[in-house]
Amino acid sequence: MKTVFTKIEGAVTAPRGFRAAAIAAGIKRSGKLDMAMIVSDVPATAAGTFTTNEVKAAPVKVSMQHIKRGKACAIVVNSGNANACTGTIGLIHAEAMAAAVARRIGCRETNVLVCSTGRIGVLMPIVKIEAGIKKLLGSLSPNGGPSAAKGIMTTDTFPKQIAIRVKAGRKVIRIGAIAKGAGMIEPNMATMLCFITTDAAIPRAALQKALRTAVNQSFNRVTVDGDTSTNDTVICLANGLAGEFPLAPFQEALNYVCVELAKMMVLDGEGVSKFVTVNITGAASDADAEIAARSVANSTLVKCCWCGGDPNWGRIMDALGYSKAKVEEDSVDIAFNGVPAVRNGIAAHTPHARLRKIVVAPAFSVDIDLHLGRGRCTIYTCDLTEKYVTLNKGE
Amino acid sequence: MKTVFTKIEGAVTAPRGFRAAAIAAGIKRSGKLDMAMIVSDVPATAAGTFTTNEVKAAPVKVSMQHIKRGKACAIVVNSGNANACTGTIGLIHAEAMAAAVARRIGCRETNVLVCSTGRIGVLMPIVKIEAGIKKLLGSLSPNGGPSAAKGIMTTDTFPKQIAIRVKAGRKVIRIGAIAKGAGMIEPNMATMLCFITTDAAIPRAALQKALRTAVNQSFNRVTVDGDTSTNDTVICLANGLAGEFPLAPFQEALNYVCVELAKMMVLDGEGVSKFVTVNITGAASDADAEIAARSVANSTLVKCCWCGGDPNWGRIMDALGYSKAKVEEDSVDIAFNGVPAVRNGIAAHTPHARLRKIVVAPAFSVDIDLHLGRGRCTIYTCDLTEKYVTLNKGE
Repeated sequence: MKTVFTKIEGAVTAPRGFRAAAIAAGIKRSGKLDMAMIVSDVPATAAGTFTTNEVKAAPVKVSMQHIKRGKACAIVVNSGNANACTGTIGLIHAEAMAAAVARRIGCRETNVLVCSTGRIGVLMPIVKIEAGIKKLLGSLSPNGGPSAAKGIMTTDTFPKQIAIRVKAGRKVIRIGAIAKGAGMIEPNMATMLCFITTDAAIPRAALQKALRTAVNQSFNRVTVDGDTSTNDTVICLANGLAGEFPLAPFQEALNYVCVELAKMMVLDGEGVSKFVTVNITGAASDADAEIAARSVANSTLVKCCWCGGDPNWGRIMDALGYSKAKVEEDSVDIAFNGVPAVRNGIAAHTPHARLRKIVVAPAFSVDIDLHLGRGRCTIYTCDLTEKYVTLNKGE
Repeated sequence: MKTVFTKIEGAVTAPRGFRAAAIAAGIKRSGKLDMAMIVSDVPATAAGTFTTNEVKAAPVKVSMQHIKRGKACAIVVNSGNANACTGTIGLIHAEAMAAAVARRIGCRETNVLVCSTGRIGVLMPIVKIEAGIKKLLGSLSPNGGPSAAKGIMTTDTFPKQIAIRVKAGRKVIRIGAIAKGAGMIEPNMATMLCFITTDAAIPRAALQKALRTAVNQSFNRVTVDGDTSTNDTVICLANGLAGEFPLAPFQEALNYVCVELAKMMVLDGEGVSKFVTVNITGAASDADAEIAARSVANSTLVKCCWCGGDPNWGRIMDALGYSKAKVEEDSVDIAFNGVPAVRNGIAAHTPHARLRKIVVAPAFSVDIDLHLGRGRCTIYTCDLTEKYVTLNKGE
């Protein structure tokens, strides 16, 4: 049975039975959109993955509790304030946001999920937020998906959205998603958020497993600066209005949606000038491959030379060597876009100009074969630029 | 018995029986000094610590073998070429450097230690280097220590040297040292090197233990960018010409010398505008304290806000949270120069202007109490600036 994906319009409101909206509640001094909401017309099966940071924002703590029930009717999001490191008051504020939505749409408070992104350590302007919720509820629209994509942006330079129609045999469902990037462009803004909707009917446990798998292949495979936010959240709501759908093609489609959004996040990373795919093959294990790939992708020195278009493979060898992965210097091959730079741990004698031509381009791959086993991993990353520092230094 | 340190002149030639020199051998196209040598008049007890990187430069491999004999007469160093990732030919070149020195000063090849620093992956200009060795031997001087400090600089902006006279009871010894920094200022230059001489007589095993202890408290407590070089080397030669000396004051003096040089390295880190001391107390263990301190000190986002003089403690909380150390959000206190920024995981309500005044200064401490145990660690680090990126992006 062949699965066919077709890109469609509408983002999170492309699947049946979802409405969304975004408004400016005055949380951001700039007056830009700073709140968004997604509502399912019927209670949806809900799955989520949350930051692994020990320091978790209040809305993360609240949503982790709420999602345990397995059902959700709405997601409410604000940008401009992370509601992190805000103690008991922060928790009360996050609960109040859920309660305000629940009261007005007529569901349980635990059926509302809450997300925040913005500066850490500042109490929420809760009066503005409650007014914002009221306004959002009046603005919900079955065409509101693209607007919600804008509403969750902090300093992303473009909204991140996708929607696909998925056909497997005679069955058709839709998946829509919006995300905001790991683009910590404005000082103190951080966090990745992603909200996925589908009209497929997927049992709770299967949905959670599918989401975990998709996230591991996408958002967990991108790195801009190696900093893990207190607020990272991915939520998937499946309202079942298009009926049951086989799991294998659903997984395939969910992976596709998540990988596309993850790549958009890297492309829109702060100050990014290059999109780099780091492919490790031949590692002793998949876990080792990931360790090696992350060591290369997060090396400050490696990222700096990519910025300058310098095919400096010595720094890549260095980063492989200090990673905790098993590496045998004499076995390492490194190529840029498949063109050999290193063979058996030493220079492959490809003319420097040829490698440089690859690395000055806005996107390229670094292909590393450790020749030790069958472990493999791909990480999507970017360079480190002066602009990144300027954008993040604050004040 | 009180130990008294007095700073003296002479760097590595301050202790009795050491001569040193530096010359320009033409390895660097700039014509700057690029080779140095330190010779002990009598075979010295030798101890060393080397990079933990799996990818080790040829001179590191050779010196690790040679130092096993426990005695050394000379150290020969070049900058401008790391002789790393150069395969079998690289090993032959490193051995040839040791052999050339040994032949001329009349010792075993294994009594000569070799170090290189510079670009990875390029074969050594061995003819120039052998000519350089001859020239160095003719230039050795009992006042050559400060010159050697200049000879091992790559793009350090100032030579790093120290010498002290150490008095314990009626016994007097001297310790001298030179180092080059983790200042990877010029593209493709990396590596920290440190050479320590003393005229104390210290048994081999005790010297190795003392050096390991001193390095752990100094060079292993600084971080500029978290990248561990393929060539990092610290060597200590003890020629015994001033006689035996008690171990406890020797350790104290060695620690002092290493910490001073380590701090100089951070100060001279690439593009650095702030010197930051990260103190962790109250961790569940010393190991946990180190993990937490490194997570803060190596966080790209934390380093960027220091550059802007922004006392953004949210990013510090974030970095603590994603470290693998045990952290309980509600127990964390953070202060800048002792002035509270966070108490029990939330804002301490010190006026922002007061914290900002501390963080805009060229040096300050971040004092973090995790309130979980008695583990503690101090790490010396710096900010991340646009200049760092510019200096490291190459081409």
